[in-house]
Amino acid sequence: MSQRNETQALDEQSNASKTKATDMSSSPLEQLMTYLHDDMQAVNDTILSEMHSDVPLIPQLASYLIASGGKRIRPLLTLATARLVDADIKQATLLAATVEFIHTATLLHDDVVDESQERRGQKAANLVFGNQETVLVGDFLFSRAFQLMVKTNSVEILRILSNASSVIAEGEVLQLQYQGDMSINWNVYKTIIGAKTASLFAASCEVNGAILKDKDIQKSLSEYGYNLGMAFQIADDTLDYDANQEQLGKTVGDDFREGKITAPILFALQNASDDEKAFWTRTLVEHNINDQDLKTAQDLILKHKGLEQSKQLAREYAQKSSQSIHKIIQKNDNNRELFDMLCVMPEYVVSRLA
Amino acid sequence: MSQRNETQALDEQSNASKTKATDMSSSPLEQLMTYLHDDMQAVNDTILSEMHSDVPLIPQLASYLIASGGKRIRPLLTLATARLVDADIKQATLLAATVEFIHTATLLHDDVVDESQERRGQKAANLVFGNQETVLVGDFLFSRAFQLMVKTNSVEILRILSNASSVIAEGEVLQLQYQGDMSINWNVYKTIIGAKTASLFAASCEVNGAILKDKDIQKSLSEYGYNLGMAFQIADDTLDYDANQEQLGKTVGDDFREGKITAPILFALQNASDDEKAFWTRTLVEHNINDQDLKTAQDLILKHKGLEQSKQLAREYAQKSSQSIHKIIQKNDNNRELFDMLCVMPEYVVSRLA
Repeated sequence: MSQRNETQALDEQSNASKTKATDMSSSPLEQLMTYLHDDMQAVNDTILSEMHSDVPLIPQLASYLIASGGKRIRPLLTLATARLVDADIKQATLLAATVEFIHTATLLHDDVVDESQERRGQKAANLVFGNQETVLVGDFLFSRAFQLMVKTNSVEILRILSNASSVIAEGEVLQLQYQGDMSINWNVYKTIIGAKTASLFAASCEVNGAILKDKDIQKSLSEYGYNLGMAFQIADDTLDYDANQEQLGKTVGDDFREGKITAPILFALQNASDDEKAFWTRTLVEHNINDQDLKTAQDLILKHKGLEQSKQLAREYAQKSSQSIHKIIQKNDNNRELFDMLCVMPEYVVSRLA
Repeated sequence: MSQRNETQALDEQSNASKTKATDMSSSPLEQLMTYLHDDMQAVNDTILSEMHSDVPLIPQLASYLIASGGKRIRPLLTLATARLVDADIKQATLLAATVEFIHTATLLHDDVVDESQERRGQKAANLVFGNQETVLVGDFLFSRAFQLMVKTNSVEILRILSNASSVIAEGEVLQLQYQGDMSINWNVYKTIIGAKTASLFAASCEVNGAILKDKDIQKSLSEYGYNLGMAFQIADDTLDYDANQEQLGKTVGDDFREGKITAPILFALQNASDDEKAFWTRTLVEHNINDQDLKTAQDLILKHKGLEQSKQLAREYAQKSSQSIHKIIQKNDNNRELFDMLCVMPEYVVSRLA
C-alpha cells in the first residue's frame, strides 16, 4: 500500500467491486475481462487519448489496428496482476496502455516484415495505408509508449520495459534469420518465442512488482507472465496447423507459407524419413509450395504426433506459470477470486487446442 | 559539480586537456572533433559495445551504417555542451551514444521508407541486408537507446529523449503525407524539419542542462540545438539542388526525385508562372520525371533566387542558435575555447552552402 493514500485505495476497491458480475460459464479470459471491465475502460480511454497526434494519419492508422478487436491480453494481465498484489492502479492503467502500444508497434512492423495480407480478420494495415506509413506509425507508437512510461516516474519500470523491447527486436531478427533454415533446433525456437512473445508477457506482469518494490513478487509475476507467454505462443504456433481451426473459418498455414519452423514441424522433423525431409526442404527452404502442400504438411505433423506433442509442451509451460502465481498467493491472499482466474489462465491458453 | 567527486572531475579535466591540440586552419567541426577526441573515443567504444547482440546480424547491420563515416554531429554536440557547462561527462558519454543510436535507427527506417539506394557514399543498408532486416535492426537500436538512457537513472532525461523520439516519428509521417503535395506551405515545412531534425539536435544539447538540473541552462541549450538543427536541415535541403555539389561528385536531386518539397522549391513556387507550376506538378506530384528535369528544376530555383533565399533563411536560424549559446556563457564563462567553437558552429553549417 506504499505510495498511495487510503482514499485512493478505497476508490479503486469500490470500482473493482462494481465489476464482479462474472459469469462462470464463460471462458477464463472473458471472466477476467468482465471482472476488470471498469479498469479496462480506463485503459481504453488512455489508449485513445494517447494515440492522438496533430498528424491525422497517426491516430487513423493506429486505431485501425488497435480498434480491430485484439484480445488485449497483455494490458489485461497488467491490470489483473496489479489488482492481485494491490499495486497502484493508476500506474498500472498507464502501463497497461504502454504494453498495448509496444505490442501494437511490433504487430505493425511484423506485418510489413512478413508482407501480411490479413490481421485480426481484416486487411493488414500495411495494405490499407502502405508499408512506409506503417513502419513510421509503429515508430510513433513505440516512442509514445516510452513517453507514457516516463509518467510513472520509475526508472525501474523503464528498465524492465526497455529491456523487453530490446529483447523483442532481437527475437524478431533471430526469427527472420532462421526463416526457411532447417538447422533451427529447439533451443533456437525457444529463444525466439521467449524473446518475441514471452518477454512482453513477463514485463506486463513484472511491472506491478516493480511498482510495489517487492523483489520476490516481481520475480514471481515475471515468471508467471513469461511461462504464460511461452504456452500462449506454442499454442498459437500449433493452431496454425490445426484442421479444426480451418473448419471454424480461420486462416491456417501462415507460418508454413512464410517458412517459419515452429513446434509442430520440429516434432515432425525429429523422426522424418528422407522423403519427408525432402518435402520440408522443398516447401520451407526453397519456398516451392503448391496447393496440396499445406494438407501434406498437416498430415505429416499428425503422423508424428506433432500437435499432441506441441500441446504437451505448451502444457508444461502452463504448469510452470501456475506454480509461479501460487508463490504470490502464499504471500498475499487478499483477492481469491482474481487469483483463481489467473491460476486457470495458463491452462486456458493451452485448451484452445482441441 | 553536483553528483560527481573531485577525483572524477580531475580525471575528466586531464583527459580534456590532452585533446586541445586544435588546428585553427581546419573547419569548426574538425576543430571540435579534435578538441573532444578522447571523449568521442569513449563514445565510440560505448557505441561498439552497446550494439552487441547474441544475434550476429544485429551488430553486422548496425555497424555497416554506424561505421560508414557519418559526421556524428549529434553526439559531438552532447559532449561539447556537457564540457561547456561542466555536466557529468560519464552520463554525457552514455547520452551521446544514445542520440547516435536514435539517429541511426531513424536513418535505417528512412532508407526503407524512401527506398534509398545510397547512404554516406555506400549502398544503403536495406539494399545490402534487406528491408525486413533493416526495419527490425532499427527497432533494436531504438530499444537499446532507451536501455542506455535508463542507465542515467534520470526520469527527466528519459522524458526529453522519449519526447524527441515521438516528435521525430510524427515529423517523418507528416513528411510522408506531404510528399508530392503542392499544398504544403512554410508552416508545414518548418514543422516537418523541426520535428524530424531539430528536435534531436535540441535534445542532444538539452540533456546536459537536465543533468545539471539547471532549467535556464537547459532551455538555452535546447534552443541552441533546435536552431542549429533547423539551420543544418535547411542547408542540407539547399545543398540537394546545388550544382557545386554535383561538381564535387556528390549526389543531388534526391528530394526532387522523392517529391519532397523543401525550402528551395518553396521559394521557386512563390512567384512561379503557370508553365513553371505545370512543371512542378508534373515532376513532384505526378512523379513523371525525365533526365532533363533536375537541370530544369535547378534553373528555376536559380531564377527565383531559391538557393540564396534558402541560405538566408538558414542563416537566420544560425543567428538565433548563436544567441542562445551566448546566454549560457553569460552565466558560465569557464571554457572560452569550447564556447568559441560552439558559437561558430551554426554559421559553419550554413557556410557549407557556396
